[in-house]
Amino acid sequence: MKTLQVDLGARSYPIHIGRRLLGSEPLLSPHIVGPQVMIVSNETIAPLYLDKVLAGLGKYQCHAHVLPDGEQYKTLDVLKTIFDELLGRRFDRTATLVALGGGVIGDMTGFAAACFQRGVPFLQIPTTLLAQVDSSVGGKTGVNHPLGKNMIGAFYQPRCVVIDTDTLSTLDDRQLRAGLAEVIKYGIIRDPALFTWLEHNIGSLLARDASALAHAIEQSCRNKAEVVVLDEREGGLRAILNLGHTFGHAIETAMDYQGWLHGEAVAAGMYMAADLSVRLGWLAASDQKRIAALLEKAGLPLVPPPLPRDRIIELMAVDKKVQQGRLRLVLLKGIGEAVVTADYGADHLRATLATYFEA
Amino acid sequence: MKTLQVDLGARSYPIHIGRRLLGSEPLLSPHIVGPQVMIVSNETIAPLYLDKVLAGLGKYQCHAHVLPDGEQYKTLDVLKTIFDELLGRRFDRTATLVALGGGVIGDMTGFAAACFQRGVPFLQIPTTLLAQVDSSVGGKTGVNHPLGKNMIGAFYQPRCVVIDTDTLSTLDDRQLRAGLAEVIKYGIIRDPALFTWLEHNIGSLLARDASALAHAIEQSCRNKAEVVVLDEREGGLRAILNLGHTFGHAIETAMDYQGWLHGEAVAAGMYMAADLSVRLGWLAASDQKRIAALLEKAGLPLVPPPLPRDRIIELMAVDKKVQQGRLRLVLLKGIGEAVVTADYGADHLRATLATYFEA
Repeated sequence: MKTLQVDLGARSYPIHIGRRLLGSEPLLSPHIVGPQVMIVSNETIAPLYLDKVLAGLGKYQCHAHVLPDGEQYKTLDVLKTIFDELLGRRFDRTATLVALGGGVIGDMTGFAAACFQRGVPFLQIPTTLLAQVDSSVGGKTGVNHPLGKNMIGAFYQPRCVVIDTDTLSTLDDRQLRAGLAEVIKYGIIRDPALFTWLEHNIGSLLARDASALAHAIEQSCRNKAEVVVLDEREGGLRAILNLGHTFGHAIETAMDYQGWLHGEAVAAGMYMAADLSVRLGWLAASDQKRIAALLEKAGLPLVPPPLPRDRIIELMAVDKKVQQGRLRLVLLKGIGEAVVTADYGADHLRATLATYFEA
Repeated sequence: MKTLQVDLGARSYPIHIGRRLLGSEPLLSPHIVGPQVMIVSNETIAPLYLDKVLAGLGKYQCHAHVLPDGEQYKTLDVLKTIFDELLGRRFDRTATLVALGGGVIGDMTGFAAACFQRGVPFLQIPTTLLAQVDSSVGGKTGVNHPLGKNMIGAFYQPRCVVIDTDTLSTLDDRQLRAGLAEVIKYGIIRDPALFTWLEHNIGSLLARDASALAHAIEQSCRNKAEVVVLDEREGGLRAILNLGHTFGHAIETAMDYQGWLHGEAVAAGMYMAADLSVRLGWLAASDQKRIAALLEKAGLPLVPPPLPRDRIIELMAVDKKVQQGRLRLVLLKGIGEAVVTADYGADHLRATLATYFEA
């Protein structure tokens, strides 16, 4: 087992990465204050792993709340069912919530913990590669709104993150690839050594080589933790973690969060960000090709599905990085060097959008 | 104008108290970051004061969102309309929310600001005595749940509080008296000098004497700020501000937040807390009489409406001060001395409840 630390003063917490960690009582119980524990999971994950987690939490009064599986359920209405359950079962302010599942479960459970009785502790047990390398770390929680992704939420840090790499054995190939999109992202935005390592090891990752996966997860969490420690509430730097996400969120929202996975939309979004960066003369065409080649080797899409350009422009206009009417984008000056800027020229953005979306 | 400061480090903010402050541009604009301002108000207050506030914010892109008036609308569903409005009008992360109204408007606007795009600034312009002396200060925000009051929310501080005492001229007598319940509360829990002053000046307050009201508001905000600075997130001490609120919230919830005002329920709740404290031998009967006399002079109820005891017990069991199955209550050892304790003996509590609620 490896342990990384996210250093945020009073809100610091450990990230444990290893095999057979699911339901490890010694890892979980130091972070559980009172006797009440609510595990929030989904219909796909609960049958696979809920019993193991419950076994490790035998000394607590545990209750599981199982949600439907999918990004389309990451809504205020489904969030409300968590509150209904907590209050109906008399959970009090000393209760602890545990997120067992992928990014949707982690985001919703964290937001529920942030709001229930104005804040109770929560733990992350991410079971998808995407959640393990990205969404379970850093405290971004929330739900979607019909007009935009993650528009309602809180910065609320977990008390610990337990990443059991064995859970990846049940992850389907498409979900695995979607998670790799975020791993590749860290290489592109700030870690050229990771990018090069990925170019050589993408095959091992797709073949689920345990040590390759552990390395990719650890490097991703390290990158994420370093950025979050420097800028917890996204005053500036943290926005680079959103490479490809403005395009990606617009794609996901335009598709009603159905059909494409988040990581797939982000992959296409990163390729579009690279396209725009090349148009600006900031990124070498050869670097764009390396990015395209790596995404393709990972089995990820470069091009979004057919969607109307006007709808995408409308959705990008409500991105959280819009400030005073100007949309800031994460763009690239090289592999390992990202910038957040509104100075890209509307014409160049239009040209990129015209290439990938329908009139 | 008097200005108090709530000292919370990076989250410190001023409370301005005085006449003709509504829509004062010099007081508001230092706390508004971007060009977009959303004023949230209700159907009662907006026709009276919205124009004045808009006049002071002429240089911003202002939009007003007017909610129905009443505690029964302090729900997740109504909160959602604020998000719909913000996103529909393309409000971004640099937007500022302004709460113009009573406690319900302040709590909901603050919670909306805490959650919108994971947090935007908000200002409080409280227009009821209750909001001016209590709910606008201290950062408790949230909404009710059918199973309990304020169960979903956040600790989220405003950037400033502007209390224009002239707004009390349009407050009806019943609302004025309800606000006095919270003023009296500060006297009972920690300020015997204020309690004595109230015994002598309650008539002037009911007659809306401007200087008496200003004094009561200032002393209340000072007490509130002192407690909040010592214990922002209610780890301990802050709970004394809930004197009468466990009984009161149960009454309000049992009545579906209709019929009685919050301050009225708190008044009856404080009298019940005094009753229980006398049963325990902690409070002198003569002090209970002084409390009863002051509440009565203020025109506040001592006794709740007829409600089934079982329902009240059920509702008290989900109070936020329940820890590990034990309900902590704010009780009295004297006028000016409150304690938060679970050591009151279930029999004594049953005796108090039997006195005030129906079998």
